[in-house]
Amino acid sequence: MRIVIMAGGAGIRFWPASRKKRPKQFLNISGPQPMLLETIERVKPLAGDEDILVVLGREHLAEAQKLLPERKVHLLAEPRSRNTAPCIGLAAVYASVLKWEDPLAFLPADHFIARPAVFLESLKRAAEAAATGAIVTLGIVPTWPAVGYGYIQKTDEYHNSPGREIFQVKRFIEKPDLPRAQEYIRSPDFFWNAGIFIATPATILNAMEDCLPALFKELKKLVASIGSGAFEKTLMEFYQKIPSISFDYGVMERTNLPVFVLPCDCGWSDVGSWASLYALKASQYDAHRNLLEGQVVVIDSRNNYIANQSDRLVACLGLEHCLIVDTPESLLVMDLDRTQEIRKIIEQIEKIGKEDKL
Amino acid sequence: MRIVIMAGGAGIRFWPASRKKRPKQFLNISGPQPMLLETIERVKPLAGDEDILVVLGREHLAEAQKLLPERKVHLLAEPRSRNTAPCIGLAAVYASVLKWEDPLAFLPADHFIARPAVFLESLKRAAEAAATGAIVTLGIVPTWPAVGYGYIQKTDEYHNSPGREIFQVKRFIEKPDLPRAQEYIRSPDFFWNAGIFIATPATILNAMEDCLPALFKELKKLVASIGSGAFEKTLMEFYQKIPSISFDYGVMERTNLPVFVLPCDCGWSDVGSWASLYALKASQYDAHRNLLEGQVVVIDSRNNYIANQSDRLVACLGLEHCLIVDTPESLLVMDLDRTQEIRKIIEQIEKIGKEDKL
Repeated sequence: MRIVIMAGGAGIRFWPASRKKRPKQFLNISGPQPMLLETIERVKPLAGDEDILVVLGREHLAEAQKLLPERKVHLLAEPRSRNTAPCIGLAAVYASVLKWEDPLAFLPADHFIARPAVFLESLKRAAEAAATGAIVTLGIVPTWPAVGYGYIQKTDEYHNSPGREIFQVKRFIEKPDLPRAQEYIRSPDFFWNAGIFIATPATILNAMEDCLPALFKELKKLVASIGSGAFEKTLMEFYQKIPSISFDYGVMERTNLPVFVLPCDCGWSDVGSWASLYALKASQYDAHRNLLEGQVVVIDSRNNYIANQSDRLVACLGLEHCLIVDTPESLLVMDLDRTQEIRKIIEQIEKIGKEDKL
Repeated sequence: MRIVIMAGGAGIRFWPASRKKRPKQFLNISGPQPMLLETIERVKPLAGDEDILVVLGREHLAEAQKLLPERKVHLLAEPRSRNTAPCIGLAAVYASVLKWEDPLAFLPADHFIARPAVFLESLKRAAEAAATGAIVTLGIVPTWPAVGYGYIQKTDEYHNSPGREIFQVKRFIEKPDLPRAQEYIRSPDFFWNAGIFIATPATILNAMEDCLPALFKELKKLVASIGSGAFEKTLMEFYQKIPSISFDYGVMERTNLPVFVLPCDCGWSDVGSWASLYALKASQYDAHRNLLEGQVVVIDSRNNYIANQSDRLVACLGLEHCLIVDTPESLLVMDLDRTQEIRKIIEQIEKIGKEDKL
């Protein structure tokens, strides 16, 4: 099986641990290795290095080359970020030039999966369905009424898969409010949209020709230059012309091709905030539900996430529900319930002209 | 007038800003200059450098010499800390060798005084009474029911001072509980004990001969060596023999000599904790009662004291009532209401063998 890993994230949500130059996918934030490496390792039973294409921002190419020195994975650098539709279209074009004609799995580089065997089994089943010309998306079985994720509603129509449940998608749903999220998790028809797709390059390009003809036209122009010295220049021109649009919105919600959802209960998390990382690491809590990393002295404190990534000593007393991230260049102290609002801090830092800390 | 400045404090209460090598009196914690210098500057209208004797720990002698390079103040280093009675006795002996026979004011090096003119006027009046052979203590007019200070209760008997109120002391009171403190501040008879005494060297030594005869005997032995090459060795032997005892407990509460209290409303604070420093600096709060020092980005946060003493960026969101002290070697984050408990942190740091951070 061939895998496309989308590693274009900007990584602002884990500031100050993540920086513009070194976003989340390059950090060992959820496990012992950087998330990009963990994503590559996870699919090893299905795909060797030479079967993997990593699409990433040009500004992170050197970081990726440092991380993958001996590996043979294909690296494809976007000169600027234009959301997922151009990225997936580019990967599909690139894959077809490589003669990768079988279904590709498109995976974000910065997600955590607790049960990789379940996940890989789902990818294999999705590939079977995708080989028939469908676009298959993994539907994560929701475990709590999250308002930070999009949802997928299934129909009751089965795809003709031998004895296994793959459903036609009824609709894609944007991030809901809490009452609707609570309704969704009580129903068996709703799943979290993890942004994981499986389809052949030909299916992707067919769908794009239909839904995003202007983008498709520009993609076609790229084909001849792939592998030639002109590629970088042509790619830059491509990214100057195309609009920023997501694959979900631009293709999945509009295409006339069959779109299926495959329910998957693999212990997925997008690790989208410090709070979700805290939740993920519950097995590492101390007796007072503190998650302590690095040198920390803690007295009479509960429900804190204290990540000391400096060589300093961090001491705390009487704290509740705080996030502390201590790095050599910056210190973040905030309410652990409000880590979704970290963007406000980033904006303020930009406003006072301290972008060098981002 | 001659002044003895007692600068022997260990400075643990302002960790991590204060360190064992550089305690509070050497930090510019309440104003633009180190507290020891501010104490010297404050008494300038009464005493020149050559009229000042600073008693301090030997381990801080180099720091003091660095701080006072051009000054002519007398420095007297204690080889170990034995509380205030030996320190005051030693200063009295030293002063009598210097032929300082008039009343001395004994002042802690690390207190803050908002109205220095009132304070100096009190010292002058106290000296008049002390010249008659009394020990005079300043009684700070209390402004809130503090449980962290000792109190002095006056009698209604006036000292014969021309038209001014100096009272005989009824008793010295240890730190009270809150109900008793509330009672005290409703009465005109109670004052905070600031540890500020005025007496002649002869009076001090008379009182010691009476109340602490063993200490007095050792002090007498020192006299001959003062100013000679043998002084340091003799002083070390002295400090190995004597017990640790406070002047309040050892002398003031026991002496048969007249003990007076002079009420003084000079805006005094012992700056005994981060919280009291926060209270002291109310004029520097932002609109949400945050006290921000150094480079700090703060969003939606109230009643915090954030002291950034590093070159890092500190960012906060959604914090209430926190103390954050960020130094190059250590970081402290704690409940601003509980800064009196900082000793628990110090003990824990000692326990894990990280004394180098103290």
